[in-house]
Amino acid sequence: MADSTPRLRVGMVGYAFMGAAHSHAWRTAHRFFELPLTPELTAIAGRNPAGVADAALRMGWHSTETDWHRLVERDDIDLIDICTPGDTHREIAIAALRAGKHVLCEKPLANSVAEAEEMATVAREAAEQGTFAMCGFTYRRVPAIALAKRFVEEGRIGQIRHVRAQYLQDWLSDENAPLTWRMDKSKAGSGALGDIGAHIIDLAQWVTGSDIVGLSAITKTFVTERPVGGDKVGLGGTGASDGEKGPVTVDDAAAFTARFSDGAIGVFEATRFALGRKNAIRLEVNGSKGSIAFDFEDMNVLEFFDGTDDAEAQGFRRIIVTEPVHPYVGNWWPAGHGLGYEHGFTHQVVDLVRDLAAGAQPRPSFDDALQVQRVLAAVEESAEASSAWQPIEKEEGR
Amino acid sequence: MADSTPRLRVGMVGYAFMGAAHSHAWRTAHRFFELPLTPELTAIAGRNPAGVADAALRMGWHSTETDWHRLVERDDIDLIDICTPGDTHREIAIAALRAGKHVLCEKPLANSVAEAEEMATVAREAAEQGTFAMCGFTYRRVPAIALAKRFVEEGRIGQIRHVRAQYLQDWLSDENAPLTWRMDKSKAGSGALGDIGAHIIDLAQWVTGSDIVGLSAITKTFVTERPVGGDKVGLGGTGASDGEKGPVTVDDAAAFTARFSDGAIGVFEATRFALGRKNAIRLEVNGSKGSIAFDFEDMNVLEFFDGTDDAEAQGFRRIIVTEPVHPYVGNWWPAGHGLGYEHGFTHQVVDLVRDLAAGAQPRPSFDDALQVQRVLAAVEESAEASSAWQPIEKEEGR
Amino acid sequence: MADSTPRLRVGMVGYAFMGAAHSHAWRTAHRFFELPLTPELTAIAGRNPAGVADAALRMGWHSTETDWHRLVERDDIDLIDICTPGDTHREIAIAALRAGKHVLCEKPLANSVAEAEEMATVAREAAEQGTFAMCGFTYRRVPAIALAKRFVEEGRIGQIRHVRAQYLQDWLSDENAPLTWRMDKSKAGSGALGDIGAHIIDLAQWVTGSDIVGLSAITKTFVTERPVGGDKVGLGGTGASDGEKGPVTVDDAAAFTARFSDGAIGVFEATRFALGRKNAIRLEVNGSKGSIAFDFEDMNVLEFFDGTDDAEAQGFRRIIVTEPVHPYVGNWWPAGHGLGYEHGFTHQVVDLVRDLAAGAQPRPSFDDALQVQRVLAAVEESAEASSAWQPIEKEEGR
Amino acid sequence: MADSTPRLRVGMVGYAFMGAAHSHAWRTAHRFFELPLTPELTAIAGRNPAGVADAALRMGWHSTETDWHRLVERDDIDLIDICTPGDTHREIAIAALRAGKHVLCEKPLANSVAEAEEMATVAREAAEQGTFAMCGFTYRRVPAIALAKRFVEEGRIGQIRHVRAQYLQDWLSDENAPLTWRMDKSKAGSGALGDIGAHIIDLAQWVTGSDIVGLSAITKTFVTERPVGGDKVGLGGTGASDGEKGPVTVDDAAAFTARFSDGAIGVFEATRFALGRKNAIRLEVNGSKGSIAFDFEDMNVLEFFDGTDDAEAQGFRRIIVTEPVHPYVGNWWPAGHGLGYEHGFTHQVVDLVRDLAAGAQPRPSFDDALQVQRVLAAVEESAEASSAWQPIEKEEGR
Repeated sequence: MADSTPRLRVGMVGYAFMGAAHSHAWRTAHRFFELPLTPELTAIAGRNPAGVADAALRMGWHSTETDWHRLVERDDIDLIDICTPGDTHREIAIAALRAGKHVLCEKPLANSVAEAEEMATVAREAAEQGTFAMCGFTYRRVPAIALAKRFVEEGRIGQIRHVRAQYLQDWLSDENAPLTWRMDKSKAGSGALGDIGAHIIDLAQWVTGSDIVGLSAITKTFVTERPVGGDKVGLGGTGASDGEKGPVTVDDAAAFTARFSDGAIGVFEATRFALGRKNAIRLEVNGSKGSIAFDFEDMNVLEFFDGTDDAEAQGFRRIIVTEPVHPYVGNWWPAGHGLGYEHGFTHQVVDLVRDLAAGAQPRPSFDDALQVQRVLAAVEESAEASSAWQPIEKEEGR
Repeated sequence: MADSTPRLRVGMVGYAFMGAAHSHAWRTAHRFFELPLTPELTAIAGRNPAGVADAALRMGWHSTETDWHRLVERDDIDLIDICTPGDTHREIAIAALRAGKHVLCEKPLANSVAEAEEMATVAREAAEQGTFAMCGFTYRRVPAIALAKRFVEEGRIGQIRHVRAQYLQDWLSDENAPLTWRMDKSKAGSGALGDIGAHIIDLAQWVTGSDIVGLSAITKTFVTERPVGGDKVGLGGTGASDGEKGPVTVDDAAAFTARFSDGAIGVFEATRFALGRKNAIRLEVNGSKGSIAFDFEDMNVLEFFDGTDDAEAQGFRRIIVTEPVHPYVGNWWPAGHGLGYEHGFTHQVVDLVRDLAAGAQPRPSFDDALQVQRVLAAVEESAEASSAWQPIEKEEGR
Repeated sequence: MADSTPRLRVGMVGYAFMGAAHSHAWRTAHRFFELPLTPELTAIAGRNPAGVADAALRMGWHSTETDWHRLVERDDIDLIDICTPGDTHREIAIAALRAGKHVLCEKPLANSVAEAEEMATVAREAAEQGTFAMCGFTYRRVPAIALAKRFVEEGRIGQIRHVRAQYLQDWLSDENAPLTWRMDKSKAGSGALGDIGAHIIDLAQWVTGSDIVGLSAITKTFVTERPVGGDKVGLGGTGASDGEKGPVTVDDAAAFTARFSDGAIGVFEATRFALGRKNAIRLEVNGSKGSIAFDFEDMNVLEFFDGTDDAEAQGFRRIIVTEPVHPYVGNWWPAGHGLGYEHGFTHQVVDLVRDLAAGAQPRPSFDDALQVQRVLAAVEESAEASSAWQPIEKEEGR
Repeated sequence: MADSTPRLRVGMVGYAFMGAAHSHAWRTAHRFFELPLTPELTAIAGRNPAGVADAALRMGWHSTETDWHRLVERDDIDLIDICTPGDTHREIAIAALRAGKHVLCEKPLANSVAEAEEMATVAREAAEQGTFAMCGFTYRRVPAIALAKRFVEEGRIGQIRHVRAQYLQDWLSDENAPLTWRMDKSKAGSGALGDIGAHIIDLAQWVTGSDIVGLSAITKTFVTERPVGGDKVGLGGTGASDGEKGPVTVDDAAAFTARFSDGAIGVFEATRFALGRKNAIRLEVNGSKGSIAFDFEDMNVLEFFDGTDDAEAQGFRRIIVTEPVHPYVGNWWPAGHGLGYEHGFTHQVVDLVRDLAAGAQPRPSFDDALQVQRVLAAVEESAEASSAWQPIEKEEGR
């Protein structure tokens, strides 16, 4: 059936794990949500002609490019969606914004603060022309996390005192797991820190509405070299693994204590070596009136302790965040019919498209992502300086 | 990009909750799974011209019909997907099968054993011609449930002794929740029993590989009349609710004890009045070697107790069913990135399409669903006969 | 230090598992609770002279008897505590009451309704003389259960609709577990039904304040014969286990559906074959305003769903029942410092001693226990009559 | 009944919360465990004559002293049990050891490293004479924790990579909770750090068998002054609370990152402001082969992930640590009948008495406790030095 809604024509760069998640979101958002612009999967870019053709077919894109510069130049594209490793973000994002395309860029925003600052500057300039950039800290759009944010804003938590944030995975526990681009500092920027630590830094700051103003950190690489040739995801990968090993140049784990602008203290930990924890994004916030706790391994649930309940009946509530009153979920299924990982991406598209149609800055902005980048850099600096305290300068653009 | 895979052209009847779930599955399955036939959302049928046009646009169907007979007659349709209330299943399914269309029919198969028997008979005849019918007991395709089935088949559970199955919802707890077709026996056949009890009956029998051979039941209607005019889902509904009330003609809850063909005993309970339980499909199976437990409110998890573990380290394992080795999930996201309710429907499409391409009978067949219908009927008969024991005759066609 | 509080001089019969639990309670209650009478462990009786002497020393009793008749006759005993198998309860309890001793009798009250009726009659007569009898349904005094009862009484649950009660153990899952008196109908009366099913029947009725008025049941003996000679607990046991097997004459599992006097329906299950469940006493009650759920495997917790919470923040609360405001626990440790199984026995002594000092009937009375006995009998009758519905007559004495 | 076992004659100083817990353990241990020496509650000391007399009666002590020096001098005392605030430990412990009495001293060992060093030196000298000192890190004797230790020793965890330890309470969340000696640095030494942080430091090192070799810390006092007059526990307290406030001179919360001698990294957090967490002692250890996780709010459970399980069946096992094969619990109740907080104290007495009878050094020794004291001091030093890294010197005596 013909749809008369205006289109948002999307061009995507990269088609690995993130590309699949984004494509699904672009295909699905308008099926469940009223959108002012209907996303169109106009073109996808990748260096390998066969690979990108196959991806286009599988993921539903109408055309392909083998050079992202071509994508950025096309007149029939309104938005560039960047799903490539971090070392390419700066160049693509800036080119796209300067070409007048909106940008959705996967996290972390860049591999250094310098890159991120440049990107944020260009994004601010573009925004004045009505061209907007957003960074994909997708977990903000998990309904239980969005509900946690709402609870803080409603004053249910009161004055925040503690933030406890962990992102625990275990896929590198095995010492023989192969080397990929994610363990190569030149491509990935950092290891667990930027890949997954960035998420909990963003979540903690966003949910509490308060920024990290200083921290002390340690990092650790448990396995310093790994078998070469296992790069199955990402842009490249060459094969050949006859016992050869290559160096791991990133952290396997990072941990830090932090102070927030509102007086709270925080403890953060990101690792790929927590055997048995598959994707445990955990966030607990304790305030003067209430507490919230979340674990992505039970992602449809938010735990909430209301300190104003009568004394004999106080306890953490296991809120199954699937009621019509909860963020996003009313557009999906009846109560109790849980959502999955990919729904965060769909919700991200929903919010992004609505903001673009309204001429509003979508969040997290590049300035928001730059602030996360500053925290990531401070973690690395502190870890290199025997955990010396690193203050984080306030991000002016936010 | 042009796709050279042959098509499976689908026509769907009904576009409420189930229609949305099925449409999403038809749109999505080939994006994540290699399929021998690519589903095409050819046409959708519904009585209301505006409603069906809107649904087609929203759900992605290429054309519409306002009379399902027309859909069944169309040459460009290979499969009829029936998402309407139970009182219409028999007529549509039989017409479709006789017209040489494959059929996917939502559960419960019918509103009576007589209807179901007729449907199963026609399905058996059609199968001889290579036209197949399947019933939509979708929860079989939740990965954790499929893993439970695998564990039984692998012998990890041993001789089964106990089955404990509950389907607990609470959306009718409020006495002022409005009357809908789901509380009207003429349309829905039964209440909690057929709507949700059917699911746990199917799951328990499928996972254990054993049939219920007799049972003793009670049913209960807690709220016997409700405000008229709230029929927001379904085919019709007229509005007008100025204090008028209408009778609830179905059960609010049903419970029964059962014996299985392999000597196990079972306890079943289905209700819409378990305040606080949103969609708690719970299945626990205890055997001589192991036990499994599942709760849909934590749907990515299967609990497994292995009685052969060494004594000091025995305990129910919380298996997060998101590893590549687990059923279905390897085609989605990395480990730990959970799936949602709708994925069961997508997996159902995957299995159905593969079976159709192979000329194999997809399961659950109409014979499987007829057997569930016999159990449902036995529950009603026992409840009406002061819980007198009702033997269930063996279904020959299975 | 000399204690001037009057004494309650206790004589106990039996010194196995229950004897140890009761002894600990008699020794401990006045250490944590203000009691009007200080329990004195005056004498313990058992048939084996060496065994009873050893038990007395270990458990702290001042003297011994090898014939319970002697204990009942002693002038320096105020209360007889019966911790023997069910086949001896009637004779000891009646003799004690007639000798003017208060009685605390372990559950189930007796092995038949006829015995229980006789005991209840004698208890009623004795009560008129100020001599009181109590039955040891100890789980009533687990703080989380007592809190559940309080919530029902406070109206937090509203009109009760569902009761879901399970007592799941697994110690007979192993087919080679030896035969003991607990599998001998002549000694134990019944199997899982009377041993553990009695507890959930009592709990369900007590917490809801409503009686079971009818039921339909099944029972099952999974392993019909077992190796002889394993009777390590209990009064007797002979040894000799060279491959010899003896018959199991009781049920391994029992399940029933029930209707309550207030209109609720219930589902009950008791088994010793739920592999992996060690002592899972589970009680869930769903009402029109709230729900409660308990599992003894997490015994310091009561789950509570308050349907009057605002919609976005509803969820089962995990109440850790260790706050000073909670039943019993204020006398023990600071908040969060959990209690164990044995504390229920200590609380039972506390309540019993206070009632005796006040001249009040302690609960559960023999009439309360007789009513449970009627439910147990109805289960057996229904199971023998192909699950035919068995009404339960109202117990007049309660 | 007369008991011919030799006695261990105990004299206790202090009779508040810890005194009650210790008394219960001294009364109970030999009732459930075979002990070579039967504890005798010989005398209790406290400054207030009426208070100590009342405590003696309530807790079962045979005599009283109002000056602890008198207790230490008595010939009929074999062991001094110190249950007073930390500022008194040094003087009492040293006097007792020099008088040839064994010592059990509550944690933290002292209020400073200097005090602790002196105590450890005296303890080492006394040990050469067969007089032994032990520090009461009681949580080591919680069965689930003891099982965790066993798993590490059995090699089930492999090379340890992560330690995650939290001790979360909330009893100071309320800004109007009154000032007590626990918030007075001169009496308590520190706040959450020494009171509860000490426990997780000891547990983490003991379970892993590895020492903290350096750390970076932050501390925080959220509420800097509180109402005077609420000292209900402890040795003194005067009352008078007409709006007067006094300063909180200790930390409300402490957090630190750490490195262990075996290469693992750790994250620690202790707070009294985690609203909703009552006594959440959490310890998670991730290794190359397995992981363990514990939370005292579910104290009878140890979670264990075995990385050697076959891939499709891996998951954290919820081991209910109540089986006969588990540490300590075989002496209590049947499987599944959980223990409580106080059982750790009883097990501590069991192990202590057995060691004393065998002439062996009970653990944790004062050297063990001194090492914890060094960690506590390093936390304070790092926190005062802007989180600068503090190496911990190796404790020679261990």
